[in-house]
Amino acid sequence: MAVNLTAPEALLPVAGVRLATAAAGIKKAGRQDLLLVELAPETQVAGVFTRNAFCAAPVRYCQQQLREGRPIAGLLINSGNANAGTGRAGAEAAAKTAERAAVLLQRPTAAVLPFSTGVIGVPLPVPKLLDALPAAVDGLAPDGWLGAAQAIMTTDTVAKGISRQVATAAGTVTVTGIAKGAGMIRPDMATMLAFIACDANISANGLQAMLQRVTAASFNAVTVDGDTSTNDAAILMATGRVGDQPLSEQEADFAAVEAAIREVCQYLAQAMVRDGEGAKRFIELEVLGARSVDEARQVAYTIAHSPLVKTACFAGDANWGRILAAVGRSGLVDLDVSRIDIHIDDVALIEQGEPHPEYTEAAGAAVFAKDEYRIRIHLGRGDQQATIWTCDLGYEYVRINADYRT
Amino acid sequence: MAVNLTAPEALLPVAGVRLATAAAGIKKAGRQDLLLVELAPETQVAGVFTRNAFCAAPVRYCQQQLREGRPIAGLLINSGNANAGTGRAGAEAAAKTAERAAVLLQRPTAAVLPFSTGVIGVPLPVPKLLDALPAAVDGLAPDGWLGAAQAIMTTDTVAKGISRQVATAAGTVTVTGIAKGAGMIRPDMATMLAFIACDANISANGLQAMLQRVTAASFNAVTVDGDTSTNDAAILMATGRVGDQPLSEQEADFAAVEAAIREVCQYLAQAMVRDGEGAKRFIELEVLGARSVDEARQVAYTIAHSPLVKTACFAGDANWGRILAAVGRSGLVDLDVSRIDIHIDDVALIEQGEPHPEYTEAAGAAVFAKDEYRIRIHLGRGDQQATIWTCDLGYEYVRINADYRT
Repeated sequence: MAVNLTAPEALLPVAGVRLATAAAGIKKAGRQDLLLVELAPETQVAGVFTRNAFCAAPVRYCQQQLREGRPIAGLLINSGNANAGTGRAGAEAAAKTAERAAVLLQRPTAAVLPFSTGVIGVPLPVPKLLDALPAAVDGLAPDGWLGAAQAIMTTDTVAKGISRQVATAAGTVTVTGIAKGAGMIRPDMATMLAFIACDANISANGLQAMLQRVTAASFNAVTVDGDTSTNDAAILMATGRVGDQPLSEQEADFAAVEAAIREVCQYLAQAMVRDGEGAKRFIELEVLGARSVDEARQVAYTIAHSPLVKTACFAGDANWGRILAAVGRSGLVDLDVSRIDIHIDDVALIEQGEPHPEYTEAAGAAVFAKDEYRIRIHLGRGDQQATIWTCDLGYEYVRINADYRT
Repeated sequence: MAVNLTAPEALLPVAGVRLATAAAGIKKAGRQDLLLVELAPETQVAGVFTRNAFCAAPVRYCQQQLREGRPIAGLLINSGNANAGTGRAGAEAAAKTAERAAVLLQRPTAAVLPFSTGVIGVPLPVPKLLDALPAAVDGLAPDGWLGAAQAIMTTDTVAKGISRQVATAAGTVTVTGIAKGAGMIRPDMATMLAFIACDANISANGLQAMLQRVTAASFNAVTVDGDTSTNDAAILMATGRVGDQPLSEQEADFAAVEAAIREVCQYLAQAMVRDGEGAKRFIELEVLGARSVDEARQVAYTIAHSPLVKTACFAGDANWGRILAAVGRSGLVDLDVSRIDIHIDDVALIEQGEPHPEYTEAAGAAVFAKDEYRIRIHLGRGDQQATIWTCDLGYEYVRINADYRT
């Protein structure tokens, strides 16, 4: 079902990272629903989280641990239950399972970061998680990435993961990332989660800044339905096994590693859109000629969230009036439509606010019939730009989201 | 299909207003697709229009005539063609048809306001409109309101109109309004249009201010899909036949007439939601305890536009996690979730940010199974509030919007 997306055949181990999955019985019996990630001491960890005020208990726990600058021993991720909307009991459940994992990893003074994805408002079955932990610790191995990508899936139809290697002066750096997510939110099957590890040597501050830059161009540049989950999180880990000194942000190797990480994050972010609930089309929205990046994003998201644009894309209908109307209502101050150009792939659609004289319905229909294309809007009022990725909205999105709990 | 909405059986004439419909051949042959409204001299006319920067040619023409304070002789409305995205030729088409109507009404120095609704980007067939005008002028009659409500329909499944009378010191004032609209936008079958007439005596300034107050609580408080049309317009007319002097805004009768007009506008606005594309449910969203009306509306619209909330409503699924998540991502500064209460009808769902201890799935399911209910959110941070009305989103919305042009 996913648009031009297949599961990875193999993922490269990252020195300093070991993984194991287990069947804790949160999902149906026998399904792998628990992932434990062990990080070598000295690993630096950066995180970005949902801005939803109703964020889940594990999100709050992670934010506090990272804010306090505690060493991080590992990650504990469960699928099948979001531990969100669960009140004080949920906070205790997140802390209890994470702390037990730290003890079992023999790192009792370090924190394990907990992540949950699944049904909202149902108590986390703590005993099941605790029972499954010892076997997970015993099973830790460097080559567990592919199984990890599968264990965190919920409504995903394809496991999402990718590896990249980059040569640096200190040696070859390996980057491997996995993610889950098929709607930007599923308060039932909540969430986007992404975990990216590398063995480069990067300082805590450098890593956090890098994650924020990279997220802006990847996880924060995709949308399926405009909803933001209570559990969204992206975690970037650097084990420091390659090189004796942290890379300086001025070094070319730092930029090279960041480029590889950005590539991994963009792949994962786009993979979530390609696997968007019911998606048949993958659409790149490029807004140029804006006064600021923020206003370029505002126009792009207004188009990406328009149910009318999304249903036209689903139908493969070159219904350009809907794109025009979305641009027109995007709320930009003093928008002069007579300066706007719109292209779909290489077909000129709107020129200076009016239908291009050479545009034909047939040319438009040919682009909208494709499973991947680009809509490019030039606002003609500045030199800033933004690109985001989205998908169409069809019957299958309604079916998945209307029928899930019933 | 519409939720608890039937067509009016009769609409009251308004002294000073005559109407006629005609089959101009814009839609399929024989269908009434043209409406001409003649207004007695001295009628005051107020208008509010779409804020979409890509607004249609007739919208720009109307705005200019009203801005210049010209006397208004009548309205000319066609369905089947939006005259939007049609460039300079579209502006000329709007002017030409409106000016011909003014001449035929023998009011050459007064303006006729043109309105169009239908397909975007197709030239308005000006000769067809001009040919149909003489017969329309001949057919003008005071009791044409019901036929008028039918002639302006596009994807509407039910004609929308209502009359109210209010006793004033100067005599009985009659208010009759008609509207069309089934999505807040259809760039194909564009638009919400509403025309409300009364025979009260109200000054131009008083009428415009009244329309803006009333619109905020009616047409600007409903949403089907969050899209704003290129052609949206609401027009309020006061023929001045009742009373020799304009009502003063300080008089009780002014407030009584405004209340009747608000009631008519709220009925018409809600009728569009009840007839929302594919709607099965009619939902009132009430946000209380906000710091400002704007932030109350921001929360309400975030919920109303969430595809996940809308699909859960469609399914009749008491999936409250989605409501919670929408409130949480609505972007309010310093939102303290521990002060938030949520009720669905009279069922307490969330108390101080956590599931109410007495809430049961069965109680929630009973409300969400209804075809009309209210979701009430108390933010606990101020004393301002807002109410809006919306509908669910199901397969039928996708079908209507994906299949229309294909």
